Amino acid sequence: MKFSKRTHTCGELRETNVNDKVVLNGWVDSTRNLGGVLFVNIRDRYGVTQVLFEESSQPEVYKNAREARSEFVVSVEGEVRKRSEDAINTKMPTGLIEVVGSKILILNEAETPPFVIKNNVEANEDLKLKYRYLDLRRPEMRDNMILRHKMYQSVRNYFDKQDFLEIETPILMKSTPEGARDFLVPSRLHKGKFYALPQSPQQYKQLLMVSGFDRYFQIVKCFRDEDFRADRQPEFTQIDVEMSFVDTEDIFEVMEGLMKKLFKDLKNYELETPIPRLTYAEALENYGSDKPDLRFEMKLTTLNDVVKNSEFRVFNDTINNGGIVTSVVAKGCADYSRSQIDQLTAHAKKYGAGGLVWMKVKDGAIDSPVAKFLSAEILTGIISATKAEENDLILIIAGPKTKSLTSMGAVRLELAKKNNLIDPNSEPKLLWVVDFPLFEWDEETERFYAMHHPFTSPRIEDFEKMDSAPGEVRARAYDLVLNGSEIAGGSIRIHDSAQQAKMFKALGISDEEAQMKFGFLMNAFKFGAPPHGGIAFGFDRLVMLFAGENSIRDVIAFPKTASGISLMDESPSPVDEGQLKDLHINIREN
Amino acid sequence: MKFSKRTHTCGELRETNVNDKVVLNGWVDSTRNLGGVLFVNIRDRYGVTQVLFEESSQPEVYKNAREARSEFVVSVEGEVRKRSEDAINTKMPTGLIEVVGSKILILNEAETPPFVIKNNVEANEDLKLKYRYLDLRRPEMRDNMILRHKMYQSVRNYFDKQDFLEIETPILMKSTPEGARDFLVPSRLHKGKFYALPQSPQQYKQLLMVSGFDRYFQIVKCFRDEDFRADRQPEFTQIDVEMSFVDTEDIFEVMEGLMKKLFKDLKNYELETPIPRLTYAEALENYGSDKPDLRFEMKLTTLNDVVKNSEFRVFNDTINNGGIVTSVVAKGCADYSRSQIDQLTAHAKKYGAGGLVWMKVKDGAIDSPVAKFLSAEILTGIISATKAEENDLILIIAGPKTKSLTSMGAVRLELAKKNNLIDPNSEPKLLWVVDFPLFEWDEETERFYAMHHPFTSPRIEDFEKMDSAPGEVRARAYDLVLNGSEIAGGSIRIHDSAQQAKMFKALGISDEEAQMKFGFLMNAFKFGAPPHGGIAFGFDRLVMLFAGENSIRDVIAFPKTASGISLMDESPSPVDEGQLKDLHINIREN
Repeated sequence: MKFSKRTHTCGELRETNVNDKVVLNGWVDSTRNLGGVLFVNIRDRYGVTQVLFEESSQPEVYKNAREARSEFVVSVEGEVRKRSEDAINTKMPTGLIEVVGSKILILNEAETPPFVIKNNVEANEDLKLKYRYLDLRRPEMRDNMILRHKMYQSVRNYFDKQDFLEIETPILMKSTPEGARDFLVPSRLHKGKFYALPQSPQQYKQLLMVSGFDRYFQIVKCFRDEDFRADRQPEFTQIDVEMSFVDTEDIFEVMEGLMKKLFKDLKNYELETPIPRLTYAEALENYGSDKPDLRFEMKLTTLNDVVKNSEFRVFNDTINNGGIVTSVVAKGCADYSRSQIDQLTAHAKKYGAGGLVWMKVKDGAIDSPVAKFLSAEILTGIISATKAEENDLILIIAGPKTKSLTSMGAVRLELAKKNNLIDPNSEPKLLWVVDFPLFEWDEETERFYAMHHPFTSPRIEDFEKMDSAPGEVRARAYDLVLNGSEIAGGSIRIHDSAQQAKMFKALGISDEEAQMKFGFLMNAFKFGAPPHGGIAFGFDRLVMLFAGENSIRDVIAFPKTASGISLMDESPSPVDEGQLKDLHINIREN
Repeated sequence: MKFSKRTHTCGELRETNVNDKVVLNGWVDSTRNLGGVLFVNIRDRYGVTQVLFEESSQPEVYKNAREARSEFVVSVEGEVRKRSEDAINTKMPTGLIEVVGSKILILNEAETPPFVIKNNVEANEDLKLKYRYLDLRRPEMRDNMILRHKMYQSVRNYFDKQDFLEIETPILMKSTPEGARDFLVPSRLHKGKFYALPQSPQQYKQLLMVSGFDRYFQIVKCFRDEDFRADRQPEFTQIDVEMSFVDTEDIFEVMEGLMKKLFKDLKNYELETPIPRLTYAEALENYGSDKPDLRFEMKLTTLNDVVKNSEFRVFNDTINNGGIVTSVVAKGCADYSRSQIDQLTAHAKKYGAGGLVWMKVKDGAIDSPVAKFLSAEILTGIISATKAEENDLILIIAGPKTKSLTSMGAVRLELAKKNNLIDPNSEPKLLWVVDFPLFEWDEETERFYAMHHPFTSPRIEDFEKMDSAPGEVRARAYDLVLNGSEIAGGSIRIHDSAQQAKMFKALGISDEEAQMKFGFLMNAFKFGAPPHGGIAFGFDRLVMLFAGENSIRDVIAFPKTASGISLMDESPSPVDEGQLKDLHINIREN
């Protein structure tokens, strides 16, 4: 069908256009018939413009216009005029004008959509995912995609200006499962062999450093075949970065510049740098988290010194076993009911705490079921150490260190939520968390795992403890935290093949296994590997936080459900027997 | 190991830096010992700088420096000085200065590389692919990666400025094999089901138009499980574009702007636009190719009218059967030997020609084995039609139209190669080829196939021939050709579900099959699809042409061999039985 091309977008006409003859192409957003005058709002990506058709002056055109229903695709011609005073709509950028339609052409019809195309639509997510192409018409989703587009450009412009090279790494690579499961791709040309999709381009970017590329970045798809949690996707996007001849400070400097630019470009906000830092140990002790939300204070207080001589067995046993007694103060919450406290206790237990001790500060004294086990001096000591005041609620967890702190961190976040301590318009709080432990002990398998990944370098001064006290070795690893979400993580890498071998040994990875999985990287290190390190940002999450959304699905054009299904195209799906035969595979019987 | 960070890169020091104290980090490119003075060239991504160590003034440093071998990673400190007149090296950007070394630290050692790190190294490609990280150290490969980086940025900046949105489409999608084979990814969570890797984001970008995004682009990985030809990769990169409310002219305009910018940014060349156009029929008849190389003339001439009344059966039969008699003139090649002509004949036969008739123009007459079958009038007619001159060689192919023209096109290119008709420094020749046939008849399966893909719109005026004469329907499809290589292809799409159904019918795709494979796209079209069209550029090939390379492997950081193997990491590779079990698949017995 021949149609006139738009002279303007639907978001563009202003008072200066009055009397212009214009053509608009777009979708019918809504229609209103005032009897003889039909108002049709035409929508495109750029906005909405009101067009009106008058029966009296143009009966044929009016008749045609009446055929147009919501979501029809139309091409409209007309003349711009100023709206009358009472018809001005200050909420619409085009609200000062309207177009008097002289022609309307229906380019395509539309069935009634399964949900209304508007923000905050009441439709279940599965329906919206099935008709994702309609969901994406909603202004909110459109704006998210535009924000995402802008973030891509900002990120790349920044790295380009900083002399980084964008280099593509393969999607079809070798399977080296470590951590999460690989997605596999059977090879047709090589029977019984498989490619894997990358969990990250980690090894490739390190090889690029060996090649001398010095400063690499890429916005790249990564894949993890996990048992999907609510807000995970089997494929996700990361900003991947690696630099040579650097230490942590150099990486921090470049990344702080990136964050500064993103906040400036996307939020017009001047982020102050340097970004504060906490060690992993500090973050855990003060906030019960390795990704503390600093938009509110409410620090944890360790009470070991205060309660160490009490008669209360829970505290005593904990301290004698090397555990921690940690506390937090809920300001003005002394009137919490039993059931409110029970809820908090249940929340703490979900994270592994044995229980939650509460103390209410009332009339200058402590009201608590455990008060009777504690001396007046200790009770005063608790008030003084926690800086609790009249009408505050003190919450205490005693037990093994990490578990207790993590549980208290969860209680801290829960209290913030319940008491609206986080102002959604508050300034963004960024934080580097540094000095992560190199290894994590797994109770179940009774072995150490790499807390980041097996290429992470230990701190030079801790290197000698690799054999004697691996649990105490700190890594040259760092996370970047925004408002309580980890948005990036990285490390200085091992660049020496002997040291890498030692690391594999500490992780219980045999020489054969290391050679089979990472042989090409270890070989590469023999030919002159520079000192290097890097970082990777979770791009989807970063966009989500900038967009103020709660789910990464809201910032991905075509996301999958929590179980990895695309409801729109119904993938994964069965395939032809012929395809399987070509790939030399069978579906298993059981 | 602690080391001093570089103050300058190895490509940066100039005369203005004389007397500066500097630190360089990099690789030992070469060493030269002149007895008591050791010259060490330090290399990084940015260049090479000469550092010298003097035994007399700094015996300890000199001793350390002697430990450094080729490809060792070093950190060097020293003072910049002007080179003496006779030591100036005008070929090096840093050739006016040298650094007098006062300290050298070996950051990492290096084994002797399996090939020398220099341009035009004599090493077989398999060895270079196995040690790709070393191959990438060669300046030529480094420059290719830098060019590629610049092309990414140029492309994105262009589309961003033109109001296009970059939107990521899924890598894990539904298998809809049409054309090439899909790579499949077995699902662990959904037994017996598979994702496919996209051959292109075709359907997603059309859905984005249904969503109203209006102008979309993406630089995106695509996957085809083909029997790899020499210069194909299982994964490749394309610039993917789609636009709404457009006709071919709008797409041409935007893409010509892109090409203009790329030539300006990367080659500092002012490309003239508009880019010339040929119809598919013209390209085929005049150049024997749908991607003619216009850097040299040598047009084909159709001789049907000239020879139609000859006694020569080959010509007569061809013309009576609706075939073509096509010719080309090889200027000044009348002295070609029998064996040279045999080679050309063999070349023509590879492309399906039955044979190659030759005529030499000597002393104003034609010398040819077939001259005796042709009248003097016809012989003169041939000379006159082909504009052949003394000492030229006329080559003629007679037979079915497409096959004969294609064969002659191949002969034309072969002649250009043999006679060096293409100046490697000639201006780039761009060309739009338009009006492709919508369908291609396959002799073997006796059915029509979509020449581009099944979403391509027919020309409106040809629509009525869809049923009666499908072979004559022209598509609203176009290719962009650069120096004889197809660099992009696209079309205006069908945006009407009824018309799409008709297309599937013409292709022999049943309703059920269409519904199963493309149902979600056809459903989407029911909810208000705008007129739209797009194009996709082969990014690897584009970089290759701009880099002046002959293989796309030279512009891909980590390419695979022609049989899809990564020699560096040895993928594809066998995987654990446990991994297969998790994915519910077996390797077939036979």
